[in-house]
Amino acid sequence: MRVYLDHAATTPVDPAVVSAMLPYFTEKFGNASSLHAWGREAQAALEEAREQIARKINAAPEEIVFTSGGSESDNLAVKGVAYALREKRNHIITSKIEHPAVLESCRRLEKEGFKVTYLNVDREGFVDLAQLEAAITDKTALVSIMHANNEIGTIQNIDAIGGICQKKNVIYHTDSVQSFTKVPLDVKKQNIGLASFSAHKIHGPKGVGALYVRRDVKRSLIKQIHGGHHERDLRAGTENIPGVVGFAKAVELAGTQHVREMTKLRDTLLDGLLKIEDTHVNGPLGEHRLCNNASVSFHFIEGEGILLHLDMKGIAVSTGSACSSQSLEPSHVLTAIGLPVELAHGTIRFSLGRENTKEEIEYTIDSAKEVVGKLRALSPLARKK
Amino acid sequence: MRVYLDHAATTPVDPAVVSAMLPYFTEKFGNASSLHAWGREAQAALEEAREQIARKINAAPEEIVFTSGGSESDNLAVKGVAYALREKRNHIITSKIEHPAVLESCRRLEKEGFKVTYLNVDREGFVDLAQLEAAITDKTALVSIMHANNEIGTIQNIDAIGGICQKKNVIYHTDSVQSFTKVPLDVKKQNIGLASFSAHKIHGPKGVGALYVRRDVKRSLIKQIHGGHHERDLRAGTENIPGVVGFAKAVELAGTQHVREMTKLRDTLLDGLLKIEDTHVNGPLGEHRLCNNASVSFHFIEGEGILLHLDMKGIAVSTGSACSSQSLEPSHVLTAIGLPVELAHGTIRFSLGRENTKEEIEYTIDSAKEVVGKLRALSPLARKK
Repeated sequence: MRVYLDHAATTPVDPAVVSAMLPYFTEKFGNASSLHAWGREAQAALEEAREQIARKINAAPEEIVFTSGGSESDNLAVKGVAYALREKRNHIITSKIEHPAVLESCRRLEKEGFKVTYLNVDREGFVDLAQLEAAITDKTALVSIMHANNEIGTIQNIDAIGGICQKKNVIYHTDSVQSFTKVPLDVKKQNIGLASFSAHKIHGPKGVGALYVRRDVKRSLIKQIHGGHHERDLRAGTENIPGVVGFAKAVELAGTQHVREMTKLRDTLLDGLLKIEDTHVNGPLGEHRLCNNASVSFHFIEGEGILLHLDMKGIAVSTGSACSSQSLEPSHVLTAIGLPVELAHGTIRFSLGRENTKEEIEYTIDSAKEVVGKLRALSPLARKK
Repeated sequence: MRVYLDHAATTPVDPAVVSAMLPYFTEKFGNASSLHAWGREAQAALEEAREQIARKINAAPEEIVFTSGGSESDNLAVKGVAYALREKRNHIITSKIEHPAVLESCRRLEKEGFKVTYLNVDREGFVDLAQLEAAITDKTALVSIMHANNEIGTIQNIDAIGGICQKKNVIYHTDSVQSFTKVPLDVKKQNIGLASFSAHKIHGPKGVGALYVRRDVKRSLIKQIHGGHHERDLRAGTENIPGVVGFAKAVELAGTQHVREMTKLRDTLLDGLLKIEDTHVNGPLGEHRLCNNASVSFHFIEGEGILLHLDMKGIAVSTGSACSSQSLEPSHVLTAIGLPVELAHGTIRFSLGRENTKEEIEYTIDSAKEVVGKLRALSPLARKK
């Protein structure tokens, strides 16, 4: 049996998405900036895709800027606002558990003289709203707090964060890459100024993403890829028509029934895994946890060993986020929630997708029991217990 | 008959490219950073694509950085070097006929205090090598001169430019988006430090490009999309595996026989068009002209009118580059070669692809004659003649 449980890293493209994309490679292949028939056809597809995505988050189509993915969207949001407002406001607030695309953008800005506040989170990964409010000054240009965390699944109270930012008159950016189509997002009601999305996390193609840019925020954003006047002059480069068509199709296909199904299977998985002794779950339980995330620490053993043994059984999981999977440092997210280094090193992220089955989950629980038992039998730490 | 003659804007994806990409959407869909079987499979495909592209330009695989396209590659090259070297060298040299991705990056840098020299070109679009050499000072960080021009097809003497930059110890970047696979490029022999490429101009997919970064230039380049340590820490973001696989396949398919065939058809087209009275060709003739470019000015009439009438006959052409097609300004390239505004406005770019046939070219010549005749009959300027 092959079981893919690393959907937070990437997802298989839905065959219906591939079908939607195919004509745009070979037949309707025009450049959306061209004035002739091929170009107009491409332009129409581009704008239809934009409408589909805008509708999903209650935005206007012209507020959607297509990018090459979540990382580019985060960079455009954070650096775009910072550079635009730097003369008057040189302070950014973010949290310690953001995606590296936000954190590394902030670190780069610090090197250039910006001030950055990295908010702490509690043991479940939640930002303290009072701390956030207290951190905002008249120099604050941007608050960047993600919607749902990619490692431990914590869903922030973005309603409240949006409210605070509105009250304080500061732009709010939220990295919604993990939560998109899984947790409802209403940019108008929730006072979101900027929001990042990625197609390949929702069964769409890699290499495509979007940034929601609220109409009034456009003037406070400097483009980060210069050149042609594409994407309402916020992002240069020939538009990736098959990509955006696939992205829109993926959004169309994502339904609330998938969320319910994933939640149920995820709970079965968590129940099974937590029956293994000396294990615990990271992040909150219940409605503030992303439907497809199960982050579990297995005491006394190394996550990499678990990952490799599960891999031999055909099961794909992750020790942390994909982008830091090849680093030996303990995860910045697990460190931020106060997990001791040795437990951080024993942590596995299982992330489900809509194609997972009950049989796959049962096989995974059985395999995890076996692997953890085997590894603990070899672990000097476990034997001491 | 439908005749697509706007290949400088974008090309149809070759069906063999689509076939190569397909498995990477639905089956081999892993994230190249993941450690499990799906991830390793993606990583292997990524590195194989890198090798294919490196081989084509005599580079080492680790010198190829995948990006979202030509504009991002140009931005990374120009701004990446400028920001890395700004303390010691704050001067950039480019030409007046570069792609907007280079020119607008330079204009942004000027706003931030960098000095930029925009070299003139002659009536055929060539940079003057003596002027280039004289412009280089001990403050020059980068010379960015394109390989072949996207509007008029001029192929610069990059051998000589590379030689001058090497002698003066300055990094040389060349935008090779239009010339790639059409004009041989040997980054080692030609002393290129950085070179930009795009897949969708060579029958590959949109949304994928590459930047060649010579081994010793890596330390003089700051990444422009921050986040994970992808692409040897020069460009963050989940790698677009289907995209790079398609890009590599497109490079593999591009052959010298296509160049010969396009040259022959292009010459037939130019001969036919120049038989229409009061027309002239822009850019050089012969070996220093890109094989698929025919830029022709039709006196006394407007290019947009010609474009729209040809469009009604099923023929796709461009009035300039695609990215500035929706602007009413005369082309910066045509202005730079000294073309009067009224002739610039009467200019059409026909750009051929390997799927064009002799019949299509003959139909295009006949249609152009008819359209030009019709428009001139209506033109007050032409009647005055």
